[in-house]
Amino acid sequence: MNKKKICVVVASRANYGRVKYLMKAIQAHDELELQLIVGASTLLSRFGKAIDVIKEDGFTPDRSIHYVVEGETLLTQAKSTGIGIVELSTAFDDLKPDAVVTVADRFETKATAVAATYLNIPLIHLQGGEVSGNIDDRVRHAITKLADFHFVATEESRKRVIRMGEEPETVFNYGCPSMDVLVYDSLAINNDVMERYTGVGSPIDWKKDYILMVQHPVTTSYGEGFFQVNQTLEALSRLPEIQKIVLWPNVDAGSDDVSKGLRVFREKGHDKNFRFFKNFSAEDYGRVVANAKCCVGNSSSFIREGCFLGVPSVIIGDRQEGRERGKNVVHANYDADDIFTKVSEQLQHGNYEHDPLFGSGNTGNKIADELARIDLKRLKRLTF
Amino acid sequence: MNKKKICVVVASRANYGRVKYLMKAIQAHDELELQLIVGASTLLSRFGKAIDVIKEDGFTPDRSIHYVVEGETLLTQAKSTGIGIVELSTAFDDLKPDAVVTVADRFETKATAVAATYLNIPLIHLQGGEVSGNIDDRVRHAITKLADFHFVATEESRKRVIRMGEEPETVFNYGCPSMDVLVYDSLAINNDVMERYTGVGSPIDWKKDYILMVQHPVTTSYGEGFFQVNQTLEALSRLPEIQKIVLWPNVDAGSDDVSKGLRVFREKGHDKNFRFFKNFSAEDYGRVVANAKCCVGNSSSFIREGCFLGVPSVIIGDRQEGRERGKNVVHANYDADDIFTKVSEQLQHGNYEHDPLFGSGNTGNKIADELARIDLKRLKRLTF
Amino acid sequence: MNKKKICVVVASRANYGRVKYLMKAIQAHDELELQLIVGASTLLSRFGKAIDVIKEDGFTPDRSIHYVVEGETLLTQAKSTGIGIVELSTAFDDLKPDAVVTVADRFETKATAVAATYLNIPLIHLQGGEVSGNIDDRVRHAITKLADFHFVATEESRKRVIRMGEEPETVFNYGCPSMDVLVYDSLAINNDVMERYTGVGSPIDWKKDYILMVQHPVTTSYGEGFFQVNQTLEALSRLPEIQKIVLWPNVDAGSDDVSKGLRVFREKGHDKNFRFFKNFSAEDYGRVVANAKCCVGNSSSFIREGCFLGVPSVIIGDRQEGRERGKNVVHANYDADDIFTKVSEQLQHGNYEHDPLFGSGNTGNKIADELARIDLKRLKRLTF
Amino acid sequence: MNKKKICVVVASRANYGRVKYLMKAIQAHDELELQLIVGASTLLSRFGKAIDVIKEDGFTPDRSIHYVVEGETLLTQAKSTGIGIVELSTAFDDLKPDAVVTVADRFETKATAVAATYLNIPLIHLQGGEVSGNIDDRVRHAITKLADFHFVATEESRKRVIRMGEEPETVFNYGCPSMDVLVYDSLAINNDVMERYTGVGSPIDWKKDYILMVQHPVTTSYGEGFFQVNQTLEALSRLPEIQKIVLWPNVDAGSDDVSKGLRVFREKGHDKNFRFFKNFSAEDYGRVVANAKCCVGNSSSFIREGCFLGVPSVIIGDRQEGRERGKNVVHANYDADDIFTKVSEQLQHGNYEHDPLFGSGNTGNKIADELARIDLKRLKRLTF
Repeated sequence: MNKKKICVVVASRANYGRVKYLMKAIQAHDELELQLIVGASTLLSRFGKAIDVIKEDGFTPDRSIHYVVEGETLLTQAKSTGIGIVELSTAFDDLKPDAVVTVADRFETKATAVAATYLNIPLIHLQGGEVSGNIDDRVRHAITKLADFHFVATEESRKRVIRMGEEPETVFNYGCPSMDVLVYDSLAINNDVMERYTGVGSPIDWKKDYILMVQHPVTTSYGEGFFQVNQTLEALSRLPEIQKIVLWPNVDAGSDDVSKGLRVFREKGHDKNFRFFKNFSAEDYGRVVANAKCCVGNSSSFIREGCFLGVPSVIIGDRQEGRERGKNVVHANYDADDIFTKVSEQLQHGNYEHDPLFGSGNTGNKIADELARIDLKRLKRLTF
Repeated sequence: MNKKKICVVVASRANYGRVKYLMKAIQAHDELELQLIVGASTLLSRFGKAIDVIKEDGFTPDRSIHYVVEGETLLTQAKSTGIGIVELSTAFDDLKPDAVVTVADRFETKATAVAATYLNIPLIHLQGGEVSGNIDDRVRHAITKLADFHFVATEESRKRVIRMGEEPETVFNYGCPSMDVLVYDSLAINNDVMERYTGVGSPIDWKKDYILMVQHPVTTSYGEGFFQVNQTLEALSRLPEIQKIVLWPNVDAGSDDVSKGLRVFREKGHDKNFRFFKNFSAEDYGRVVANAKCCVGNSSSFIREGCFLGVPSVIIGDRQEGRERGKNVVHANYDADDIFTKVSEQLQHGNYEHDPLFGSGNTGNKIADELARIDLKRLKRLTF
Repeated sequence: MNKKKICVVVASRANYGRVKYLMKAIQAHDELELQLIVGASTLLSRFGKAIDVIKEDGFTPDRSIHYVVEGETLLTQAKSTGIGIVELSTAFDDLKPDAVVTVADRFETKATAVAATYLNIPLIHLQGGEVSGNIDDRVRHAITKLADFHFVATEESRKRVIRMGEEPETVFNYGCPSMDVLVYDSLAINNDVMERYTGVGSPIDWKKDYILMVQHPVTTSYGEGFFQVNQTLEALSRLPEIQKIVLWPNVDAGSDDVSKGLRVFREKGHDKNFRFFKNFSAEDYGRVVANAKCCVGNSSSFIREGCFLGVPSVIIGDRQEGRERGKNVVHANYDADDIFTKVSEQLQHGNYEHDPLFGSGNTGNKIADELARIDLKRLKRLTF
Repeated sequence: MNKKKICVVVASRANYGRVKYLMKAIQAHDELELQLIVGASTLLSRFGKAIDVIKEDGFTPDRSIHYVVEGETLLTQAKSTGIGIVELSTAFDDLKPDAVVTVADRFETKATAVAATYLNIPLIHLQGGEVSGNIDDRVRHAITKLADFHFVATEESRKRVIRMGEEPETVFNYGCPSMDVLVYDSLAINNDVMERYTGVGSPIDWKKDYILMVQHPVTTSYGEGFFQVNQTLEALSRLPEIQKIVLWPNVDAGSDDVSKGLRVFREKGHDKNFRFFKNFSAEDYGRVVANAKCCVGNSSSFIREGCFLGVPSVIIGDRQEGRERGKNVVHANYDADDIFTKVSEQLQHGNYEHDPLFGSGNTGNKIADELARIDLKRLKRLTF
């Protein structure tokens, strides 16, 4: 029997965290064959070269494609999308997959979706139907309209995708595949394992209490990233005793601005008890979240993984506005005082209960089974 | 007062036919300033170089951008989109419009929509919400999700856009701007004026009866264009007495295939009483449709202009499937017998009554007034 | 032992004619492995889809890359080069050849040369050192300065490459590989074999006398192609008795213009005893040249193959100005009278003797042997 | 009278340093009009955003074009070239300059040269004919073969360009325009002015002795940058008393590697008496070189400006191999001991005499006068 060739495009370290266990499930499935394209920021050392982790995990890319135009502005993001389409279409034409998998809502995702659609290759979209109050919203919903099959992460998202006119039998809610890592791996953290992530700044003892800070630029308020990240840094500085783990931002427009905030903070020597990391493996990132006393910033992982694990989190600003969330999350404005208050309260509160809002794990296997089952060539119709 | 800069991107002769009167209305409006980018097939002589007509009509492009990758396959269509994004984003960044206008659903439209969205420039979409049974459907609805404001052509489309989650106050139905040409211009046709379109094939007397044939490739059944166009040609050959006007197809994937069908037909000398044209000005095309005894093929103009003018039309195949239509349209399969029967019946029936389904004209002015009125920077929200 | 991987990039039907026997020689060589990339106009039906012939000849492309931006203007030629570089560099990075082979002097060649050079892959250039009085001259010599090894076609070219500062031990004169086809294949022509080339126009009897006309656009006098081709057509019309075989022009800037000249000529019905073909296989093209009573136009094949075979030729205009030539060639201006006179004289004269100016065949094997022998990683130095 | 439109493409901070005074001279010239395109790393904050300095200096870009594909590998350099060609050709087609000026030998230069050549726009090349022992050599000489006019910096270069087959009357030696800055500006340095360059590391007193270190990656030994820069840093660490000024490397392939060397050195806290800067204005860079006790690394400015100013310099490795040089330069291997010895000797020796090898200044004006005088449309011919 011919296996169905499922081509996964991994275009950022966040992407990889999401689909790793789906990739493993496809690889292990009797009726499926994995094709892997890695591209964009996965290849860049400034963003932690996720490609190295991907290879260590036993995956062999069929194609590696550079398509990030440097600049991290809105303009270069558009251009990166354009070049991504040019090159991904050549790769798809060559690899001839039976379906292409794309994740979430960023510009790399968009390039994948457009290229696959124009080539009449069935498009599988993960994590559609969510709302986050951002340019990402438009892109995510536009991809929903291009996609043939939708694997959403929550019940609310499932309903929303269907309300947008997608046929219910093409929309599946098996939860978010990024939860899988939390189930498959022990969540204990230890200094020996973590030693390989050097980072810069104060020394860290992973066995002691720490706050995790991850703050990405917000593309709709492009240009304010420097101010925004400074508010958070100032708030956390008022908690001198507890250790602070900070991750550099992703490659969105404005990331230069946020990075600059972090760099200036360090140069000024205000970084006592702060340590800065480029990235972690998906598993180790799961451990870092799981063991944090509080997560601060605007990463969607605080809402997803945080909800699953019950980690107290403070979401700042509007990057995740409108996104479904569990009880573990409180909101703060771009304001050092407000952030300080909310973080203090969350530290006080301590851990929340597990909440299955984003699924209960094993999502990768469920999606792989579904991909084997469905007729990928089904003709797409709008329900109204 | 600062005028609002409205940038219209015209990327094919069909695009231009749609927005010409909107462009005139923007140009004439006190509070608006027209920026014009022409690109893609408007610059290519194989597709009738619409740029020449645009300049004759008194418009001066701010940018001319080549971005059609030759091949007319699905692959090259994807690549054209990619390169379009790369270059349009540079142009938008330079021209800094307050809004960008894009029309309908083809790959050039897509490039415009993606580039504008990433640059945070408000996107105005014309003719969203329609259903045509084609890859165009996906692209059209995806653009709806990217767009900030929607100027739809029918009441049904308005409802559909709103059902997809767009806010009702951003969706306007002023009809289709391609009707304007039918109102603004006398619809009489005469041989002297038409003489400048040379064409090839048998001589034509525009004062005598003729059938108009326009058949575009269908991207979802890529590779079958040669067969499809032959069915139509064979059917029309069985009506030897009446003159046949044939337009070459547009630049969609598969157009090579359709063109080949037309060429082979001509080479074989079967083209008695057929004459082949590359394109007409928007006004003259309106006249050619208005005076046809029957329109045959799959052009959406048969449904729109045909409905407005009551011209008997036979729509072949599924390119326009699901699209709203008036009484002037009957459907035929890709089958010479079926086509022959339906065309004969329509010739018998003669003209239908005017039907305001796609508006009553003056649409360009109404849209321009609305653009002057609305707050272009309104924050987009999903209604559910 | 590891074979040296030699990557040949074939980007036009003319390219393929040149390197076909080198490709065969590489394939057959014990110490070499052939990698094949086909791209640009080889993939386009308007230019005869050389890819089909390449596959029929038993070659399997490792990559097929579309990179012709439509328009055939100087501008789109530049853009095609740019996109070619973007995609070829990805392919080279993936295929990791030990050397890349590029032929002659056109924009597709340039893209190959730039991409390979930037990737530090040794570049093998065929047919450097020639002079033709054209933008091609600049491109050809620029590629010489980028290339590591030079396989030139004549002694004069060898000296010229060395005078430009290339080290003598990197410059080899084994003649022009396009002569190989003339040696390997019988040169008799017959109607049965040629029947598969349909063409358009008057019927042709290959056993009877014919003139071959091939006239490409001249990029430095862009815009005059229509006039130029008309002069030739008019001159040949004055020889009504003899059959005329005409090939459509290549994809250079201005080819639209020349094609239009041919089309209008046909539309006007002036094409009695003319037949128009898109392209021939390399072997059949060799036969068509070999059996022509006279070759007319500006194809370099009239100078190369014509010289080898002693076929009387009339070269028109300055496209081949400065190029070495044998006695079989006379020159004519873009002037119907002059062309008519020169063609008449050549028909009178009849065939010339074989001239080994461009080598004596077996060039493909000699180059392959040299590639196996040389140290591809040799450091390039300027001699002065 | 119509002014000749001279389009200068500035694509890196080094480019700008070279052509600034030529740009001023064109702007001031009665018969010339300046068109300015800025692109590539001039727009990137990681490389000091030269665009800001350019604007401060009173120039207004006609176009700003992003075309650096992130990665700083050989592959991304090729891709940047490709995208540069795509976009520059659109800009040239739009601005319609009478000539395009390109400087030196890097990938941005190459893109300019290819785009202009294909568009038949006369190409003016600055600093051709030099030899530096690098991939830059090939690119530089290839541009010579594409260019119409050559403004070289030394007598030796003039002869070399002519030997490569360029016509002597198209080759002009007015010296290097980067000397102009040294003449036009006072070379005194003071702490107040320099304060605006913050930099990172130990505090610096510009009035006291310092060594200047500028070490770029070497593209032909790609991957060894980390080792190479470490040798230099170690050598300079053995001179603890004297201040060290270090500039971050340019955007060549491998720059990541060199940057990493600098960063790790800083992170380890070995940077006592070292201060790191991103860039200086052309004038201030001239002052920094002029007042250095010794220049160390592989910047060509040590050879040019250093020669003019008589500043003792140590050139490391082969990046500038074969380049003409004055007495102020000694060579060292990638070896900390060797570097330490040579730097110590140069410090001992002290300043050299002024040497007019690279001209005596006022070059910008001389070139501008020549551009006004020459027939830009002159047909290019090879001399042999």
